[in-house]
Amino acid sequence: MKRSFELAEQDPHTDHAWAQEKLNELRPLLLHWQQERLEKADQALLIVVAGMDGVGKGSAVNTLNTWLDPRHVHTLAFSEPTEEEIMRPAMWRYWNSLPAKGQTGLVFGSWYGALMNELQSKHGDPIKLDRYVRVIKQFEAELAYQGVKILKLWFHSSQQAQAQRCQDLLANPDTAWRVTKKDLKVQKKFKQIRRAAMETITLTHTSHAPWVMVPSADPFTRDLTVAQAVLNAMQKPVQSQEVEAPEYLDWPLAKPPLELRALKQVKSPMSKEHYEKELLHWQARISKAVRGKAFQSHSLIILFEGEDAAGKGGAIKRLTAALDVRDYDVHPIAAPAAYELARPYLWRFWTRLPRHKKIAIFDRSWYGRVLVERVEKLAPVAAWKRSYAEINNFEAQLVANSTLVLKFWLSVSKDEQLRRFQERETSPLKTYKITEEDWRNRGKWNAYRTAAQDMLDHTHTGYAPWHLVASNDKRTARIQILKQVCEVLESLQHAHSDTYLRLTEPEPTQLINEQV
Amino acid sequence: MKRSFELAEQDPHTDHAWAQEKLNELRPLLLHWQQERLEKADQALLIVVAGMDGVGKGSAVNTLNTWLDPRHVHTLAFSEPTEEEIMRPAMWRYWNSLPAKGQTGLVFGSWYGALMNELQSKHGDPIKLDRYVRVIKQFEAELAYQGVKILKLWFHSSQQAQAQRCQDLLANPDTAWRVTKKDLKVQKKFKQIRRAAMETITLTHTSHAPWVMVPSADPFTRDLTVAQAVLNAMQKPVQSQEVEAPEYLDWPLAKPPLELRALKQVKSPMSKEHYEKELLHWQARISKAVRGKAFQSHSLIILFEGEDAAGKGGAIKRLTAALDVRDYDVHPIAAPAAYELARPYLWRFWTRLPRHKKIAIFDRSWYGRVLVERVEKLAPVAAWKRSYAEINNFEAQLVANSTLVLKFWLSVSKDEQLRRFQERETSPLKTYKITEEDWRNRGKWNAYRTAAQDMLDHTHTGYAPWHLVASNDKRTARIQILKQVCEVLESLQHAHSDTYLRLTEPEPTQLINEQV
Repeated sequence: MKRSFELAEQDPHTDHAWAQEKLNELRPLLLHWQQERLEKADQALLIVVAGMDGVGKGSAVNTLNTWLDPRHVHTLAFSEPTEEEIMRPAMWRYWNSLPAKGQTGLVFGSWYGALMNELQSKHGDPIKLDRYVRVIKQFEAELAYQGVKILKLWFHSSQQAQAQRCQDLLANPDTAWRVTKKDLKVQKKFKQIRRAAMETITLTHTSHAPWVMVPSADPFTRDLTVAQAVLNAMQKPVQSQEVEAPEYLDWPLAKPPLELRALKQVKSPMSKEHYEKELLHWQARISKAVRGKAFQSHSLIILFEGEDAAGKGGAIKRLTAALDVRDYDVHPIAAPAAYELARPYLWRFWTRLPRHKKIAIFDRSWYGRVLVERVEKLAPVAAWKRSYAEINNFEAQLVANSTLVLKFWLSVSKDEQLRRFQERETSPLKTYKITEEDWRNRGKWNAYRTAAQDMLDHTHTGYAPWHLVASNDKRTARIQILKQVCEVLESLQHAHSDTYLRLTEPEPTQLINEQV
Repeated sequence: MKRSFELAEQDPHTDHAWAQEKLNELRPLLLHWQQERLEKADQALLIVVAGMDGVGKGSAVNTLNTWLDPRHVHTLAFSEPTEEEIMRPAMWRYWNSLPAKGQTGLVFGSWYGALMNELQSKHGDPIKLDRYVRVIKQFEAELAYQGVKILKLWFHSSQQAQAQRCQDLLANPDTAWRVTKKDLKVQKKFKQIRRAAMETITLTHTSHAPWVMVPSADPFTRDLTVAQAVLNAMQKPVQSQEVEAPEYLDWPLAKPPLELRALKQVKSPMSKEHYEKELLHWQARISKAVRGKAFQSHSLIILFEGEDAAGKGGAIKRLTAALDVRDYDVHPIAAPAAYELARPYLWRFWTRLPRHKKIAIFDRSWYGRVLVERVEKLAPVAAWKRSYAEINNFEAQLVANSTLVLKFWLSVSKDEQLRRFQERETSPLKTYKITEEDWRNRGKWNAYRTAAQDMLDHTHTGYAPWHLVASNDKRTARIQILKQVCEVLESLQHAHSDTYLRLTEPEPTQLINEQV
C-alpha cells in the first residue's frame, strides 16, 4: 500500500499521443460494458470518489461522465446531513440513494469522511475507529453480496504537484474559481492526510470493494487510470460467493433462548368486560408515553410476524387506536416489487425508517427473508443464512440511533388456525383475508415452525429481543402486546445505558461524513 | 350548504339496532368495492379528514380503518412543514405522497388548513383567498382528471354536543388524554369556525371532489355517514370527461411569440479557439453566480427539449462542467415506469424538484406529454390538450417558489440531423445514442414540428419563457445556452419584482397548512 502512494507521488506522466490512443480504445469498451450491465441488470456500480483536494477529482469525474452514457450515471453527493438524516442511522442516506442494478452511482462525500477525520485527528479513539471500520466493511460486504460493486478511487499526487496545480488555476481568472479553500489547506496537512489515507485504504481494501490509487499530477495518467478501473469494474460483475464475510460482532443473544414449543396457550380466555377495561388502560398509558419528553428524541419500530391468522391485523388496530394518526405509519410487507428487487434486500426497509417521535409498524417485515423466502425457496440457502447477521447488524444500527425495536411473534395452535381459516371463508367481512396461499402455507406448517425457531435462535438479541405471544385467545394476546409496547416506551423515562451498543456501534452523529 | 350545517347541528341520532344492521350491510360492500378498485387499479381515493376538533374525527377514522383492508389504506398526515418542504411549492408535499391507483389515502392536515385560517382571520385578504381557492381547485381537478377521486369529509355537531363529548372524555382518566387543547378551544370560536367552514365548502365543492357533511354528535350516525360516503366514492370511479375544468388563469404569454420556422441556423460556425475561450468565460461566470448570495434562496430548473441529435447531451455536459457535482442533478426522462403510470402525469416531476441552492437539469421533460405522447398517440387528445394549462400552472407554482425555470428548444435542420444520425451509426463512441426509434421519429418530422410549434404557442410564458437554440453549429448553440443560464442567474443579483406571480400565486409559506 505504501508502495502505491510512493508511486503516485512520483507524479508519473504518460506520453500524450500514446494516452490518446489508449483512450480511444477504452472509450468504446466503456460504453459497451456499461450497456452490457444495463441489459443484464445484474450489478449496480458505486464509484467512491475520494482523495486529496485540489488534484482534479472534479475534472476527472466530469471527463468520466463524458465517456459514459450519462443517462445511467447518477451523482450521489453528500455534505452536511439534513434534519431528516440526523434522525436516522448514519448509513441511512447511503442506503436511500442506492442505484438500481444496471446503473452507476458516483459517490461524493462518502462514508469514508468520518473515518478519515478520525484518523487525521491527534486524539483518535481506537474504539471509535474499530467501529467505523466494522460498519463500513459490513455495509460494503452486504451490498457486494447482493449485486452492488463498489470501486473506490483515491486521487493522489506529490505535494509539489498539488501546489503547482492550484497555482496554475489561480493564475487564470477564468479558472481561479475552481480552487477552493480546502484545496489550499492541503499543503499544511499533507503528511497527516497521507498517513490517514494510507491507513484507511489498508483497513478497508477488499476484493469486492477495492481501492484504486489514481496518480493525478498528469491529467492523462489520471484519466487513463480512472477509465481502466471503471472498465474493470464493469467487465467483472461481483460474484456473491467471492464476497468476503465481514467481521460481524458476536451478537449478544438474549437469555434464556425462546422456544416456540414451550409456548403455552391460555386456558381461560379473557372476559369481554375485563378486556375492554384493560384495553382502555393500556391505550391511555401508551398515548401518554408517546407524548412524553423522553420519546421526543427516540423512534419506535414495532414488527409483527407469526402464523397466518394469528391476529396481527387485529393487534395493530388496537395499537393504532391509542395513537395520533400523525405519529405512526403501518407498512404491510408483501412480495417485493421490481424496483425493490433491483436493490439489496434490506433497501425497502431502510427507506421506511421512522424519524424521531414517530412509530413505524411493520405487518410482516425483513424477517420474510428467513421465513417465507426460506421455506418457499425464493432465496438461495447461502443468502438467507447470511441474513441473520445482516438483520442483527441492521437492528443494532437502529438501536444505536435511539430507535426502539420491538418484535412480536404471534402464535396460534394448528387447530385454532383451522378454525379461523374456516371462519374467514364464511364471514363476508373476513373473506378478503383468506387466499389459496394461506391454505398452501398451512400445508407447510412444520417447515414454517422450523424456520421460525431458527430465526428466534439467531435474532433474539439483547438489544432487540423477540416477544412470543400466545394468540389463541385474541384478547389476552392484544393486551400482552399493548402492555409490552407501553413498557418499552415508559422505560425511556428512566435513565438507561445501553452500554453494549456504545461499545459496538458508533453514535449516528459520529459517523457523519465530510468529504474525504 | 347552510342547510346541511343546520341539519348536522340538530345532532341527529340513529337508532342503534337499525344502525348496527345497516353497518352489517355496508361493511362487506366496502371490502368488496375496495377489492374491486384494487384489482382494476383505475382510481386512487384520497379522503380528506376535516372538521371541528373534538367531535370524534380520530375515532371515526379508526373505525373506518377497521372496516377496510388496512394494507391498502395509507395515512397521510401533514403538520408543520419540514425544512425540505419549505423549499418547495406548497403543494409539493401533497403531490409527493399521492397513493397509487387502487390505493386509499387518509389525509390529515390537508391543503384546506391555510384556506380555513385565512377565512377565520379578521383581516382576511380577498386576493389571497382567491389564490388559495384557485390553487386548490386546480390541484383537485388535475388529480381527478387523472384517476384520483377526492372525498372531503367535514365532521360537525352542535356546540353543545362538542362540549359534552369533551367533558365526558375528560371525566374518565382513561380517555382524558384524547382531549387536546385544540378541542377545548373550539367552544370559544365555534361561530367563526362554522362560518369559515361554510365558506370553504361553498367555494370548493365540486362533483369530482365533493364535500360530505358528517353529523358527529352520535357515533352511529357519524360512522354510518362516513361508511356510506366512502362506499359511494369507491363504487363510482371518477370519469375524466366529467371533471369540471378548473378556472385557470389567463397565462400571460411572452411576446413576441416564438416561430420555429423563423429560426435561422448560423452561417459560419464558431472556431474552436473562440469557442474554448467563450466556454471558459461563461463557465466561470455561471460557477460564480451559483455560489453567489442571491442563489442561496432560489433553485433552478433547466430543461432541454428538441429534435433527436440536436445536441442536448453535449450541452448538458458543458453546463455541468461549470458546476460542483453536489449542486446539480441530471434527470433523463424516458417512458414512465409502472409505478409512475399509477399516478397523475406530473407526479414524477413533482417528486424531483430541487431544494434551494440546487439545480435540476431535465434531459427531456414534462413536455413529453404534448410532444412524443401526442405524436405517438400515447395520450388521448383531450388529455394532452389539457396539459398545456396544467404545465403552465405547474411552472407558475415553481416560479412563485423562487425556482427559476429555463426552457431550451434545440433545433437542427433535417439535413443536419441526417448527417448526425449517420455519424452516430458509424462512430463506436456514439452508436449507443442511436436506435431504431430515432429513425422512426425522423419519419414523423413534420408531426413533431407541429407539436413543437403548438407547445411554443401555449407555453411560452412571461415567467417561464422558451429559448430557441439554432443547433446546427454545436459550439454556437452551447455558448448561447451557457450565456442564457448565466444571464438568468446573474439577474438574481439585481432587485427584481415578479409582480405577476405575486398577484396570481400564493407565496409558498402562505399556503402552509395547519390541521383544519
